[in-house]
Parts: sequence; C-alpha cells; structure tokens
Amino acid sequence: MLPPTKLNLSGERLTAIYHLTGDQAEARTKADDICIEQTIEFPAALVPDDDIRGHIFGRIEDLQPLSQERYEATISYAVETSGFELTQLFNLLFGNISIKPGVRLMRFELPDSLYKAFNGPRFGQSGLRSLLNIPTRPILCTALKPMGHPMSAMADFAYQFALGGIDIIKDDHGLANQQFAPFKERVERCVEAVARANQETGYRSIYMPNITGPADQILDNARLAKELGAGGFLIAPALMGPDTVRSMADNDDLGLPLMGHPSFQGSYVISPDAGVSHAALYGQMARLVGVDANIFPNYGGRFSFSREECQGIAAAMEMPMGHIKSIFPSPGGGMNVDRIADMREVYGRDVLYLIGGALYQDSDNLAKTARQFRALAEQV
Amino acid sequence: MLPPTKLNLSGERLTAIYHLTGDQAEARTKADDICIEQTIEFPAALVPDDDIRGHIFGRIEDLQPLSQERYEATISYAVETSGFELTQLFNLLFGNISIKPGVRLMRFELPDSLYKAFNGPRFGQSGLRSLLNIPTRPILCTALKPMGHPMSAMADFAYQFALGGIDIIKDDHGLANQQFAPFKERVERCVEAVARANQETGYRSIYMPNITGPADQILDNARLAKELGAGGFLIAPALMGPDTVRSMADNDDLGLPLMGHPSFQGSYVISPDAGVSHAALYGQMARLVGVDANIFPNYGGRFSFSREECQGIAAAMEMPMGHIKSIFPSPGGGMNVDRIADMREVYGRDVLYLIGGALYQDSDNLAKTARQFRALAEQV
Repeated sequence: MLPPTKLNLSGERLTAIYHLTGDQAEARTKADDICIEQTIEFPAALVPDDDIRGHIFGRIEDLQPLSQERYEATISYAVETSGFELTQLFNLLFGNISIKPGVRLMRFELPDSLYKAFNGPRFGQSGLRSLLNIPTRPILCTALKPMGHPMSAMADFAYQFALGGIDIIKDDHGLANQQFAPFKERVERCVEAVARANQETGYRSIYMPNITGPADQILDNARLAKELGAGGFLIAPALMGPDTVRSMADNDDLGLPLMGHPSFQGSYVISPDAGVSHAALYGQMARLVGVDANIFPNYGGRFSFSREECQGIAAAMEMPMGHIKSIFPSPGGGMNVDRIADMREVYGRDVLYLIGGALYQDSDNLAKTARQFRALAEQV
Repeated sequence: MLPPTKLNLSGERLTAIYHLTGDQAEARTKADDICIEQTIEFPAALVPDDDIRGHIFGRIEDLQPLSQERYEATISYAVETSGFELTQLFNLLFGNISIKPGVRLMRFELPDSLYKAFNGPRFGQSGLRSLLNIPTRPILCTALKPMGHPMSAMADFAYQFALGGIDIIKDDHGLANQQFAPFKERVERCVEAVARANQETGYRSIYMPNITGPADQILDNARLAKELGAGGFLIAPALMGPDTVRSMADNDDLGLPLMGHPSFQGSYVISPDAGVSHAALYGQMARLVGVDANIFPNYGGRFSFSREECQGIAAAMEMPMGHIKSIFPSPGGGMNVDRIADMREVYGRDVLYLIGGALYQDSDNLAKTARQFRALAEQV
C-alpha cells in the first residue's frame, strides 16, 4: 500500500462519454477498467483512501443501457490530469483504451478552464466567411488532380476553377513534394493562376496547398507557401500529428485558415464498437486541433458513412465548446453537383461543398462546370 | 480526357499487401479501387494510355484467396509517389483507404532507394545493447507510477528499481507536465536517483522520461531532459505524430534511444478486417519512425492481442528492411514475473520485458522485487 497523497486540486472535472459493449456486468467492468487504465494504470488495491483514489482515478458518473449489449458510460477525470495540453488530453480521453475492444469514445465535455487552454480554430465559420467575403451561401471547394499531371497544366486547372467561381482550390492530399509535383513550383504556379482569375472575376478565390513533409520543416513549408501567396493550408492531423496542426493554427506568422484532411485517420471510426465516434473525431477533436473546415466522406459517395453519422459530425462542429469557434463541415469523397440538393437538406448553408474528380468530367470546360456548381450553391 | 503525360520515372516500385473482405469479385473491386484511391483519386476513364495510367496508378501484382470471404492483394506503387517522405509514404500505403471498410494493410516492402530515405532507429537492438552493456540477456524495463504520487516519492521508486537492477526505468505515459508531475522536477529527481543507484551497483540503468507537450516545444523538452541526464525518451507516435518521432530519432543533438508507446494507436489494429496489422504497425512502421524499442500489449495481459499477433510483431521487428535496424519488442500491459518463462519461448533473448504495476505489489521492497525480476531474466 502506498502512503496517502494529498493533492491541491480544483475539483473541476472533464467528462467523456463512452459506449461499451456487453451486458450490464461486462459494461461495469469495462467502465471500472477505463477509470484506472486512463489514469493511474496501477493496481488500485495499493492506493489508500487519499486524493489519488478520490480525484485522480476516473469516476463513473453514469452507466445507462442503450440495448441489452451496449451501455453508455459517463466518466469524469480531474481537469488537472489533462496537463492542459492537447496531446495529454487525447491520451487521457482515449490513449490506452484505444487498444481495448468494445470501447468507443462518443463525445466529451470540458470545463471552461480547459477550453481556455486551447485557441481552437483561428477563423472558424464566421472568420472564414469574412475572409472569403461570403456572408451566407455555402462555400465551394475543389481539388487539383491527378497526381502526375504537370504543374503547368495543374495551374491551368486552378485558373479555370477560379474563373468559374470556386472559392477554395486545394491540392489533392497526395500532392506532397514529389519530383512530378514539386512543392514550391506548384504553389507559385497555382497562386499566380488563381490571382489572375480573381483579377478577371473580382472574386476572392484562394489556393490551399497541401502542407506535408518532415515535421521539422513543416512550419517552414507553410511560411514559404504563405510568402508565395497561398490562401490557406490543407493538412492531415493523423499524418502530421494533431498538435503539429494545433501549432500551425496558433502560429501568428502563418495566420491563414486550415482545412483538415481525414487521411490515415479512418481507423478511428471504422468499427462501430471501438475507436472514436464520427462526431468526436471530425467535429470535437478537430475543433481543438484548430482546423477551420474539416473534410470527411459524405454519405452516399465512395465511402460508407451514413447520413446520420454525417449529421452528427456537422452538429459537433457547431455544438457549444466554450469559446472554441464553430467550423465548416466539408463533406466530400465522390460528390457531384447532383448531390447538392440533398446535401442542402442535411447541412444547410453552413457547409463547404467539396467536389473533386466529378468536376473534371468535361476537362476542356472546367470553368463552365465550375460556374454550374456555383450557380447551384447560390440557389440556397 | 486529359492529354497524355510523359514522366521520367525510375520504374522502381514499392509493394503493399492488403487483406480484403468479400468474394473474388468484391475483392477485385476493392483492389482496383485502392489503385486509384491511393494515387490519382480521379476518374480513371479520363486518363489516357500514358505514364500516369502506366506508372502512377497503383498496380495489382497479385490477388489470392485466403478463404471464401478474404483475399490477399499485392499492390505496387511507383517509388516516386512516396516523395521519399514518411508522411507521404504512410499516406500512400494507408491514407484514404483507412476510411474504407474491409481493407487491412498487412505489410509492405520498399526498394532500397526508398529505405535509404530513412535513417530508422539510431540504436536498434545492437546499439541499445552496447549502450546498456547488456550483450545477450533480455533487457528489463519498468514504469514510474501512479499519476498523482509526489515526485520525491516517484524518484525513490526509481532509485529502488535501479538498485535492484532494472535497466530502463521509464515514466508512465500519463505523466506529462501536470501540476502534480512537473516535467523538469521529475526528470531532475529521477535522473539523480538512478545515478545514485548506479554508483552503488555499478550498473548502467537509465531513466527515460515521457516526452509530450506542444509540438513546437517537443525538441526543447527532449533537449532539456538530455541536459538533465535522461538516458532516452518515451514517446507515443500516434499522439505526437509519426514524423515528429522520426525527427527526434534523426536529431544528432539528442542522440538518445527512443521507446515507442502505443497510446491512441490501438484503433489501427482493433478490427481484424480493417486498419493495419499488428506486425506492420508495431514492427515495420515503428522502425521507419525510428524507435529503438516499441511497447505493445502482450498476449494474456490486460489487453486482447493473441500470441500469434505478438509473434508477428516480434518477427516484423527483425525482418529485413534494407539498412533499417532491428528493434526490441517490448511486450507489456499487465505483465508479471510469472509470465517470463512463457515470454522467453515466444520472444527469445532479444526482448525488453516491461513489467509495471505488478512490481509494486510489495511497495516497501521494490529493490527486492526488482532483483527477483532480474534474476529470472538472467536465467536465459
């Protein structure tokens, strides 16, 4: 038995809601296990009746059946265990238990003292609307493709899309710094092309390059892109690390909007009985990470998310989270203009429509296709 | 249709092996889909018979049944598509398809030209053995716990463990920089305690603090720990970002061994039909990331990995991967000394035994318990 410990804690707790598989007894065992695994990871019997047992241990606040084989556990943790850091917060919410079957993190609620530790998105929905001068309508986005296509031709795609009124023209997330897609040349050419189109149209389209590469060069890459005239950054939190993205959002020298990409992140949501819910991952966690818009696969496209899961994501992007701004849902993944009417029902106006490959079907008339896309979006 | 593109590619390809669910037709569809989704992410019909179609498209090299409802696909990609960068390589191997059900990355093989882009672990098995002066026996490791315990008392645990001959005394991965576990004080105290014990014993035990915190401070934290006398670093790739860990391994100013922690990473392996295999994640990818030893939950502990999965991990830590060094499997997660005989059968001598909580059962006699642990390990 350890000697008793006295800690000077605030008493404030953060709360995580998990779904647990199994009957009531199994769910209770899993909930008890989470309380230990996510905190002391130590034999509970060796801890006396002290502040560690009373406050550091996770605490089951509620355990409710959802069905005979699925329970919802509400577990709280002392706010101090988060260290007021993003990495430790994610570790606390879903670190070791990510390795255990039958535990899914559904959502979380933080006290204001912890939300205040994070700046969240620099722009958020309203900031991005101001920046792009789009007060109310859905925002349009497309992607520059395909990998291997020459940069001069890719820049012409960017020009055509901007001419047709696409607001955000982003790199495909597979464009890194390959010999056939050199980063600096790509940014230079695409920035120039979009600026040229903006001069003709009077629009404020922006180009968002994909920011990837060695972790110790990532800020330099982003700075270079900004100097060259990029209007924002595409970045994949699971590839670059969630806190690397947070550090970009917080960096005053950068000061441009971020769009999150879901690459390498699908494993968190793919099993309904484990991982992290769509809403928590693409919505809540993304807001703490600090992206202003977050891409996820829309229902009915090339991926398998349901309409309800997508609605859950969009709701989590706007739900109250202290001072953390709302962000734009950016449903993509095999979308086309025929889906807009249905997407309007699900997402309303506060959405960033991402249509990629489908805009290229008439590849000699990208500007015309883009104009049709824009006209549809303006009908809202 | 796009105009034809001519690319100056080497013809070298890297290979990824995926397991796909479904019958033959479904598996073929999934394999075809991977070839596009992971590369051009663009309507294939718009690409002419050019170098993009011929080389940038993923290529199905083989498709073999494993059962009526599971197929193994071998898919190759042009080495240039990786950009010779870790983040883009992971994106290429398992980026968007992480979001698709029924696709599991089992293993990969890279050409030497791509292995050469990575340094891999700085020490590896032989380097860590030299550093610790342990030519042949298994290496012993324990963790400082529980969260909330005062740093002075935690340092005394470290002293006792070192006195008893534990080679690596690491932080529990939940110790960040909380008010009750301040990073600098913790490192100072634990380094001093282990050094004092080493003076008494003549051993070379080392203390490995958990390196976490803001991405833009992580190298500074590691440098501080090294200056204070830390002997290595514990780090969780899924929390900090795989390439952040790679940048630490490559950093000559740090030059200390890294131990990987599986926190927040379990979602990749938890579903047998999706994600990444245990061997690829904890073995192959960890070696590219550059950890010298990697922690994973042993079979028969608090987690659910099978003996075969653990054997697969250990094999992947030693399989040929160009010049990339072998690393130590560090099975943990509810281990105790009674498990050593069985673990010896599975892992042989080239293993890092991680026993945490179980060593504290007789908390007034940690050194004695540690000596028993060491005696058992020396019997190999």
